[in-house]
Amino acid sequence: MKKFINNPEDVVEEMLEGMAAAHSNELRRLPGWNVLVRKDAPVTGKVGLVSGGGSGHEPAHAGFIGENMLDAAVAGEVFTSPAPDQIFEAIKAVDSGSGVLLIVKNFSGDVMNFDMAAEMAAAEGIDTEQVVVKDDIAVENKEDRRGTAGTVLVHKIVGTAVEEGLNLQEAAELAQHVTSRIGSMGVSLSPSTVPASGKPGFTLADDEMELGTGIHGEPGMERKKIQPADTVAEELLDKVTAELEVKSGDDVIALVNGQGSTPLMELYIVYRKAAQLLSGRNISIHQSMVGEYMSSLEMAGCSLTLLKLDDTIKKYVT
Amino acid sequence: MKKFINNPEDVVEEMLEGMAAAHSNELRRLPGWNVLVRKDAPVTGKVGLVSGGGSGHEPAHAGFIGENMLDAAVAGEVFTSPAPDQIFEAIKAVDSGSGVLLIVKNFSGDVMNFDMAAEMAAAEGIDTEQVVVKDDIAVENKEDRRGTAGTVLVHKIVGTAVEEGLNLQEAAELAQHVTSRIGSMGVSLSPSTVPASGKPGFTLADDEMELGTGIHGEPGMERKKIQPADTVAEELLDKVTAELEVKSGDDVIALVNGQGSTPLMELYIVYRKAAQLLSGRNISIHQSMVGEYMSSLEMAGCSLTLLKLDDTIKKYVT
Repeated sequence: MKKFINNPEDVVEEMLEGMAAAHSNELRRLPGWNVLVRKDAPVTGKVGLVSGGGSGHEPAHAGFIGENMLDAAVAGEVFTSPAPDQIFEAIKAVDSGSGVLLIVKNFSGDVMNFDMAAEMAAAEGIDTEQVVVKDDIAVENKEDRRGTAGTVLVHKIVGTAVEEGLNLQEAAELAQHVTSRIGSMGVSLSPSTVPASGKPGFTLADDEMELGTGIHGEPGMERKKIQPADTVAEELLDKVTAELEVKSGDDVIALVNGQGSTPLMELYIVYRKAAQLLSGRNISIHQSMVGEYMSSLEMAGCSLTLLKLDDTIKKYVT
Repeated sequence: MKKFINNPEDVVEEMLEGMAAAHSNELRRLPGWNVLVRKDAPVTGKVGLVSGGGSGHEPAHAGFIGENMLDAAVAGEVFTSPAPDQIFEAIKAVDSGSGVLLIVKNFSGDVMNFDMAAEMAAAEGIDTEQVVVKDDIAVENKEDRRGTAGTVLVHKIVGTAVEEGLNLQEAAELAQHVTSRIGSMGVSLSPSTVPASGKPGFTLADDEMELGTGIHGEPGMERKKIQPADTVAEELLDKVTAELEVKSGDDVIALVNGQGSTPLMELYIVYRKAAQLLSGRNISIHQSMVGEYMSSLEMAGCSLTLLKLDDTIKKYVT
């Protein structure tokens, strides 16, 4: 394991200290908690947005704190759900009396702990709503789908909407609506190593790739010989467009996300083919995002996310 | 070599197509050239800023095209200087009659080819000035120092200054002044592989790191056992502050740059220690940047850059 760390058990604490120091104009840390909040939280009259989950997916989620985005991000240990009391502190810190929407990736620990935090908030009279993002179409059963890079689109769109005045109920409905129209599919070339374990999360042969690997290295759908980037892009795109029933005349947001160690050069090569194919099918890319949004430490790979837009959502795409 | 590419010889072309497609609101490609320019170039009355160099350092330089930054970026093949005619096309495309400043990283091919392009421009009556960035203090002889992540600070600061109306001579003087106050030092854990060669650019043992490796994998100053992040941060910081003679009461911009596959988590851990040490020495961090600004494909490692500010420069730090 070659990493710039000190003690493996301190990585999250030290990362949070680094983030708080680097971005003190935008955010602050809740003293004693693994929670970063928007500097001016709670924002009067605005629904608060809280997300979070295991660490190791940076810039998600703390990198998306700010105007038109999140009010708080809760950081669990690496690839581990944050505890309910941490989430509860985040909720309290961002509630201005307008309630708080929790944006949760669909992992059992996250769902359970955000639920418990919501109950703790209710007991103190704070209204919350939750949306659980299930965008990873590599998992067949819709209810079991993991939350991946598509979660960032929920942060941005719902973040803009609550800034423009949506109330808690409206924000929750919008978040649910957006989530239902997002699909993602990844492909990995090499694993990441959680500092506390010191060992790669899985192994792949030198000529192999894995379709549908989870953001924590969960097994995917299929292993096969590594394919040219254009073939990879087409396979990801076909799977996502089929799932979302994207068709001629539709508008989408297209996000090509890097899993950690894949160079931007390769992400743009994948994006290029996806964009060509979409154009050829008369599907319009309303907005493009290419880069690392939801990483998995130093995993090599990428994912393609589409959000199938409609007029309701477009109002909040900035 | 595990990469999302098609043919190795097509990576730059396909990357540029991807970039142009993804960011068509901000930039456009000069047809037939490996040049991306700001969408509204040339900007009337403004000095044009052109940078570029070998590809493989993304987001540098095309990712820094835009308002308060570059007008054009010229992309050579991977880790290879762009040809003079490509640079000349960029110059012509961004000259509004106010002249063009070329921001060049100090590599012999880059310097020679930007020089030749400047001569071609002069022959057509276009005024140019050049600044050569030599921020990599791992090289002892100041004139031989390579241009690395600090180049991005020149883009941003001079980009802001020319937007505010500096003329070509003033912009060149400012760029020279900024450059003289930047120092960078990197440390690498593992190499990158240029697609056309298919082989890693160097090798390091499993427990080794290399101080001062160049952004193309050029040999550094010293190989040693991998150290804790805090030790690494202190060594980088001590070398850069000594070189720039940064002292108590000074203000700096601090940039921790990822070389490619190093997770943001680790960059923040390195930043944390650097910030603590600076604070303890009564050196104020005026602005922080943590992330990938000047990558080296999938090299693992990071670099620390400081810019020692003064009132002249601070006016243009946004």
